[in-house]
Amino acid sequence: MKALVFDGKQLSLVKDHPAPARRNGWAVIRVHLAGICRTDQEIVHGYMGFRGVLGHEFVGTVARCADATWVGKRVVGEINAACGECDACARGLDRHCPNRSVLGIAGLDGCMAEYCSLPVANLREVPDDIDDDHAVFTEPLSAAFAILEQVAIDPADRCVVLGDGKLGILCAWVLATVSRHVTLVGEHPDKLALAPWGGIATSQDTHAERADADVVVEATGSPDGLRDAIARCRPRGTIALKSTIAHAVPIDLAPVVVNEIRVVGSRCGRFAQGLAGLGEHAFPVERLISARFPLERAAEGFRAAADPRALKVLLDIS
Amino acid sequence: MKALVFDGKQLSLVKDHPAPARRNGWAVIRVHLAGICRTDQEIVHGYMGFRGVLGHEFVGTVARCADATWVGKRVVGEINAACGECDACARGLDRHCPNRSVLGIAGLDGCMAEYCSLPVANLREVPDDIDDDHAVFTEPLSAAFAILEQVAIDPADRCVVLGDGKLGILCAWVLATVSRHVTLVGEHPDKLALAPWGGIATSQDTHAERADADVVVEATGSPDGLRDAIARCRPRGTIALKSTIAHAVPIDLAPVVVNEIRVVGSRCGRFAQGLAGLGEHAFPVERLISARFPLERAAEGFRAAADPRALKVLLDIS
Repeated sequence: MKALVFDGKQLSLVKDHPAPARRNGWAVIRVHLAGICRTDQEIVHGYMGFRGVLGHEFVGTVARCADATWVGKRVVGEINAACGECDACARGLDRHCPNRSVLGIAGLDGCMAEYCSLPVANLREVPDDIDDDHAVFTEPLSAAFAILEQVAIDPADRCVVLGDGKLGILCAWVLATVSRHVTLVGEHPDKLALAPWGGIATSQDTHAERADADVVVEATGSPDGLRDAIARCRPRGTIALKSTIAHAVPIDLAPVVVNEIRVVGSRCGRFAQGLAGLGEHAFPVERLISARFPLERAAEGFRAAADPRALKVLLDIS
Repeated sequence: MKALVFDGKQLSLVKDHPAPARRNGWAVIRVHLAGICRTDQEIVHGYMGFRGVLGHEFVGTVARCADATWVGKRVVGEINAACGECDACARGLDRHCPNRSVLGIAGLDGCMAEYCSLPVANLREVPDDIDDDHAVFTEPLSAAFAILEQVAIDPADRCVVLGDGKLGILCAWVLATVSRHVTLVGEHPDKLALAPWGGIATSQDTHAERADADVVVEATGSPDGLRDAIARCRPRGTIALKSTIAHAVPIDLAPVVVNEIRVVGSRCGRFAQGLAGLGEHAFPVERLISARFPLERAAEGFRAAADPRALKVLLDIS
């Protein structure tokens, strides 16, 4: 099958990559559409030391499965394949299973290929009223919803989201389903222009030092993001930390102690929540699609995604 | 009056420092005993830019007060003098009032003097069954109890306290009132030997990388402490961050995001809780007294407190 493979040095389209083998309890999915995520771009720069087929954001159709009721269903899939036997799995924290493989990120070929494979338990059927262009946002949208699972937010809470990238915008939309006071802060007027929804305000004042936010979401992807978040957060407020910076960054954490701030690391969320949110709130995710390329032109897609003006770049696969 | 004054350059015993002026709603306290805290040592090295009488840990007797019922009572005192009028005060977060002065730390002469002064609202009467040597620990013990206010701890939770200084030991004792699995980790065998109480285990394995603790308290006072805490904390676990490092330190926070760890800055606590804890649990705080000096020999006291083997050094004042 055709697949976009990272060999540790470069990204290339392989025309005869082996299709996923059958595994007990797993399904093989024919991929319709895949999204290029910042993590994919970081993997190409060495993050996670991953080798194999890239990609973890997708929507597709189940092609093969021992449980025939799944075959032909349109699905998205949770990206963590857990062992089901460790302490973390016993706590329901399968996304933190130390033995897990992760689609296109760790030990498991990803979805930028004609076919990918996941445990049946990871599949979520996509309702008919959610089309592929929306369903492909389930993974990042679930990551945004994870904040609501980790941080109790009140309608009166002042929420600030730092970062006008796709994750920042999705986080702002999700927070706006709960809080009446959400401000998205970024430095790209064209991206901020896409954000208004559900009463969200936008601001280009990226280095404000008014420490008056009850909740700050740090989604800048920048080493400076946490510093700015700390400066915005009120005493005893909460920072949801979304950016994964793959190296040590000098940070003065004394204000976190003095102001008794809670910093909550937040990564991926439950797909059931993301899908339900897509249906319930009709988030205008289509605004975030900057470009689309066929899999054969994936290299162009990655270049387009690296443009600071870009939001989501999709790969059409089948 | 005699007072230990830091002028921005050096610490000196001033024999004729002006006694605290009368202020509406404030009391003047004759100080019996003051404790030397790490913060005092940092102030002498420039932290907070404070100038004036040092000291914020004390027990004393009310000498003058408009409300005569207070006069003659033995008291300890909350160290933050809040404005009572701002947003933070309205939320009950007087310890975070941006307009506050702080005894011996910011804008208010401290307790290493014959007399100090605090708002009457800050005073807490010391019960007769708590002697001065115990009552003087109310401030750091309240800071330890703040963790229980900020982090819900279950009796089955595995708790690790990093740092065998006085705050680390107090935190371990406080956690042991709730959890059955508390381990204090430090590098000083003589200090660890003082810690056993309430079923606490001790360990010298300061760089363990078993990420299995539900709760980690970082009280090392060292820039490496947070890194070690992150390595110990299980996914979705909690780190209570106690050390105030007064400069930027390079930290790799990616594991905080990937493992969705909560980092909770924790500073001072409510004196009512600390005093109640002293009465209820009979913590053996007397073990932590390394030395005592009269105020006249405070310079010696500060040198003794700077010895890495020292725990609490007290100043006898009257």
